[in-house]
Amino acid sequence: MSKLVIVGTVAFDAVETPFGKTDKILGGSASYIGLSASQFEIDSAIVSVVGGDFPQNYLDLFSNRNIDISSIEMIKNGKTFFWSGRYHNDMNTRDTLATELNVLENFQPIVPENYKDAKVLVLGNLHPIVQSSVLDQMKDASTLVILDTMNFWMDHALNDLLDVIKRVDVITINDEEARQLTGEYSLVTAAKKIHDMGPEYVVIKKGEHGALLFNGANVFFAPALPLESVFDPTGAGDTFAGGFAGFLAQTENISFENMKKAVIYGSALASFCVEKFGTERLESLQFEAVRTRLKAFKDLTRFEIELTS
Amino acid sequence: MSKLVIVGTVAFDAVETPFGKTDKILGGSASYIGLSASQFEIDSAIVSVVGGDFPQNYLDLFSNRNIDISSIEMIKNGKTFFWSGRYHNDMNTRDTLATELNVLENFQPIVPENYKDAKVLVLGNLHPIVQSSVLDQMKDASTLVILDTMNFWMDHALNDLLDVIKRVDVITINDEEARQLTGEYSLVTAAKKIHDMGPEYVVIKKGEHGALLFNGANVFFAPALPLESVFDPTGAGDTFAGGFAGFLAQTENISFENMKKAVIYGSALASFCVEKFGTERLESLQFEAVRTRLKAFKDLTRFEIELTS
Repeated sequence: MSKLVIVGTVAFDAVETPFGKTDKILGGSASYIGLSASQFEIDSAIVSVVGGDFPQNYLDLFSNRNIDISSIEMIKNGKTFFWSGRYHNDMNTRDTLATELNVLENFQPIVPENYKDAKVLVLGNLHPIVQSSVLDQMKDASTLVILDTMNFWMDHALNDLLDVIKRVDVITINDEEARQLTGEYSLVTAAKKIHDMGPEYVVIKKGEHGALLFNGANVFFAPALPLESVFDPTGAGDTFAGGFAGFLAQTENISFENMKKAVIYGSALASFCVEKFGTERLESLQFEAVRTRLKAFKDLTRFEIELTS
Repeated sequence: MSKLVIVGTVAFDAVETPFGKTDKILGGSASYIGLSASQFEIDSAIVSVVGGDFPQNYLDLFSNRNIDISSIEMIKNGKTFFWSGRYHNDMNTRDTLATELNVLENFQPIVPENYKDAKVLVLGNLHPIVQSSVLDQMKDASTLVILDTMNFWMDHALNDLLDVIKRVDVITINDEEARQLTGEYSLVTAAKKIHDMGPEYVVIKKGEHGALLFNGANVFFAPALPLESVFDPTGAGDTFAGGFAGFLAQTENISFENMKKAVIYGSALASFCVEKFGTERLESLQFEAVRTRLKAFKDLTRFEIELTS
């Protein structure tokens, strides 16, 4: 089976939405990416760091989904990265209540030897210098590298961010971040400018408004599934990236046609993520349910207009 | 050919966008709806009112697109309805600078005898009592009635609005208005509540984020075409409604499958509308260009995932 390596955070989150609030639950970009990608027939590994306070049952949860956790370093006398946030009523905006980096502060990811030739590498949101250090360790130029980032690094480490962007094949970024990075309001123009920065494929995530995939003159749009209730949006973007990456690793095909499918898988998985708090819905998700949702995406977007006459 | 009757405003607009500003140009809901619907092989008529200041060449513009203008009443000693607005940099929000109702204040639309059995009736944005008075004149229960409205009437004439909503087959409404009308944030839930108010079909327009069509448990999504530059969004919603209505009138088929196509035609036409100020792009638009854009919509949304295995 082909290999996927995921570098990112494994964390505690505490989330407040209009529907309720949680104590510390499992969070972090690598957790969502890993659980989402575990829907596919691949060998995957998470490279991350946690503190001595991190419970064994969360680690078991990864293992039970066949995710290799041997590169999740545990620093016994350290504390796990903690993020806390409160969503507004529209569920699209949120306030960060706390960010405690803890063991993440000195995180130096080490890619395990047997994953240095992985088919796909996902660089979850981390300091761009840390992301670059991962790229330095990889051994096979054909590895597809997918980068996720956020506005924080545009504000605080723009040059480092541009350095790592230059080296990746795919970037996933949300619409406001794409606008900030390029100074362009039009997402079409923004995508062009990001292409020029390096990545051959640009995925712009628009949350409840779907996602756009750009590759040169090609463009593809996947809607978000219209849902009756969004319970907790945390991790939806990472879940998207995990589904996207997992499908590409399994199929070993990076044609534009196949990338389109990957975007649909990512969107389908993200639509599950938001149905419950944190990773809860992903933990128990069966592929049969994913298949049903793919059918819903097909029904949602399919139309027949004859254009030959 | 089957008949489409459009009741709405024919007006002067003055528009300011980040790209420039116009003097008084042709505007009004019925103008956009009529020009957009004129892409189809139908007989169409506009029912509206203008003042003595309305130039003959605008009327000729309608006539040249085979739109029956005999029911555009001209009040010689009155002035044409005038709206003026300024768009913000994001092109999604705008300030109204002036609204002069003028001859619109006492407008009592009279549907011409030969259009009282029209296949399709579009009620463009007007006072809901005026919209209801049009319905009272129609003679064929099988006429498909499409209603457009806006938040202004929710604030100022809610009961009248609910009365007319009860009587129509299709409502087109933007996302914020759907939320205001129902008190529901989820568009899925909002659409259900609007169904319960009367209309069998609910179209929720999301501007640059596309449009959703709801019919019972069926839902369809059409994206807006990602554009490099949006020059002037004025009239895009009406242009959508015109394309939607024109296609339905031409095809005389109100199955959900055909409604989906109508939504795509509406979206394609709206994508032209925003490329130039006011109605300019629609005035010269050839169907061949529309066909090319339909192809772009197909490419934008089409993916192949086998779900049988």
